[in-house]
Amino acid sequence: MNILYGLDLLGTMMFAISGAMAANRNNVDVFGVGFMGFVTAIGGGSLRDIFLNIRPVWVEDGNYIIVISIGVLISLTFNKQLYALARTLTLFDAIGIGFFTVVGVEKSLNYESNAFAAVLLGMFSASMGGVIRDVLLQIPPLILRREIYATACIAGATLFVILDNMAVDPAINAFASASLVFTIRIISVRYNWSLPIGQKAFSSKS
Amino acid sequence: MNILYGLDLLGTMMFAISGAMAANRNNVDVFGVGFMGFVTAIGGGSLRDIFLNIRPVWVEDGNYIIVISIGVLISLTFNKQLYALARTLTLFDAIGIGFFTVVGVEKSLNYESNAFAAVLLGMFSASMGGVIRDVLLQIPPLILRREIYATACIAGATLFVILDNMAVDPAINAFASASLVFTIRIISVRYNWSLPIGQKAFSSKS
Amino acid sequence: MNILYGLDLLGTMMFAISGAMAANRNNVDVFGVGFMGFVTAIGGGSLRDIFLNIRPVWVEDGNYIIVISIGVLISLTFNKQLYALARTLTLFDAIGIGFFTVVGVEKSLNYESNAFAAVLLGMFSASMGGVIRDVLLQIPPLILRREIYATACIAGATLFVILDNMAVDPAINAFASASLVFTIRIISVRYNWSLPIGQKAFSSKS
Repeated sequence: MNILYGLDLLGTMMFAISGAMAANRNNVDVFGVGFMGFVTAIGGGSLRDIFLNIRPVWVEDGNYIIVISIGVLISLTFNKQLYALARTLTLFDAIGIGFFTVVGVEKSLNYESNAFAAVLLGMFSASMGGVIRDVLLQIPPLILRREIYATACIAGATLFVILDNMAVDPAINAFASASLVFTIRIISVRYNWSLPIGQKAFSSKS
Repeated sequence: MNILYGLDLLGTMMFAISGAMAANRNNVDVFGVGFMGFVTAIGGGSLRDIFLNIRPVWVEDGNYIIVISIGVLISLTFNKQLYALARTLTLFDAIGIGFFTVVGVEKSLNYESNAFAAVLLGMFSASMGGVIRDVLLQIPPLILRREIYATACIAGATLFVILDNMAVDPAINAFASASLVFTIRIISVRYNWSLPIGQKAFSSKS
Repeated sequence: MNILYGLDLLGTMMFAISGAMAANRNNVDVFGVGFMGFVTAIGGGSLRDIFLNIRPVWVEDGNYIIVISIGVLISLTFNKQLYALARTLTLFDAIGIGFFTVVGVEKSLNYESNAFAAVLLGMFSASMGGVIRDVLLQIPPLILRREIYATACIAGATLFVILDNMAVDPAINAFASASLVFTIRIISVRYNWSLPIGQKAFSSKS
């Protein structure tokens, strides 16, 4: 329990850093950096909780807001150094979305959503913060660009639901499913994989 | 009950197709097409349910996600043919928004919203999925373009509330109100009707 | 109670006018003006209520929708005159965000959010309607431009939480906190204050 809670806080901070860095790239002021860090960090999980009709965790637990503030301060202070770390950040981000996906599916199943919805809500947890970030910064949402991102979350979330139905130990399940998200994401970045464009997916010629 | 449920599923599939087609037009990958189909299909109803503080229906009932997936697959497979059908699609869309408006008002009244809110939530049910679709694709929201779309929903929703207050039989009411939405929408497309621009609405010269 | 309720309705109308005017500037039709007025007026408070997992007030109480409609009609009728009043409107807007911030913090604390979340939800109440307005009109959100707006709300919300913990009389607290929001906002507009850009905030040279 303590480890999961710690990981959730850590993931939240990572997402806050990612939102703050995106804001920095768009030359917004310090408030805007904080705002974007916050919205990116809590967006996905809050949307999941709203769909589950429960209160988002940061409304109940102030620690989430504290770690977000720390993440934003780190982004403001070490902005230049963080850009140099971009490749490392992809790594951390891949860990983060793996973990957020699993937490999201598990929570959705606990609150008795159906299995399909749990998969979607797991993917939402990991990726909708970024969608809100991109909409507010008026850049094309990452989720609609040709990277394999949310698809990795869907794969991991589906694995979690299947293993959960097979009564696999939750800790093993969580580790396996998060690893699947991480692996798909990292390999697809490394080899520049992308999904086919929808319009051409089922036609023999362009 | 069974017919209403079937119609709701059918309407959801129609909206998924419309979202997926819009995504296709913007050259997103197959995941993006599915994502946009899903978001367009559940956006309006989910927003209504969130405002009513109840769980969106797709979280409870996996059938909605299944019909959305079917709609997305149809869009991917028959993309070219569907474009050729654009005029027919306007017809189906007009049926769809008529039906979604009525379902939305009725649900809102059942959950004891006030009459004005019920009208707005009926309109939201039918049109906010499209707003979310347009925001994510970064095109000007249809609802703000000079077509008569949401206005038709408002008219039908208002009629439903009035007839409901007059204790008209719900089935007759639903049919009459959905028909009003459909008729206004189809006539306004056919004759290219539009509302006056707000800035000039109350001034004698432009 | 009656005065607070009256002020809340008045603030809602002010926000509806601001949204409708922004829509007018973008040449949308009369429906679009009404829609934008409504969304701007109820956006911030609705988001706060959704996060608190309660029903937005306008779903329960039709008076909010009535005053919004009046605000929209005023905007449509007196569009030109209102532009001439732009400076005065900044004044009213500053009063409005002060009041909305305080109402938002107080409600959040009443519904047992943590103190940090209450501050954020107070700021959300006053500023997220404008964010939604700007996203729908596809203009850069005011909150991310270099004006001191939401920052003033954060300051006032923080003061409210501190005085509330010191058991200061709620009426005095509300007045002091709203005044702080108002004063910071007005002085920053008057002297063209802005916050430093995030990227440069912690570096000695640009």
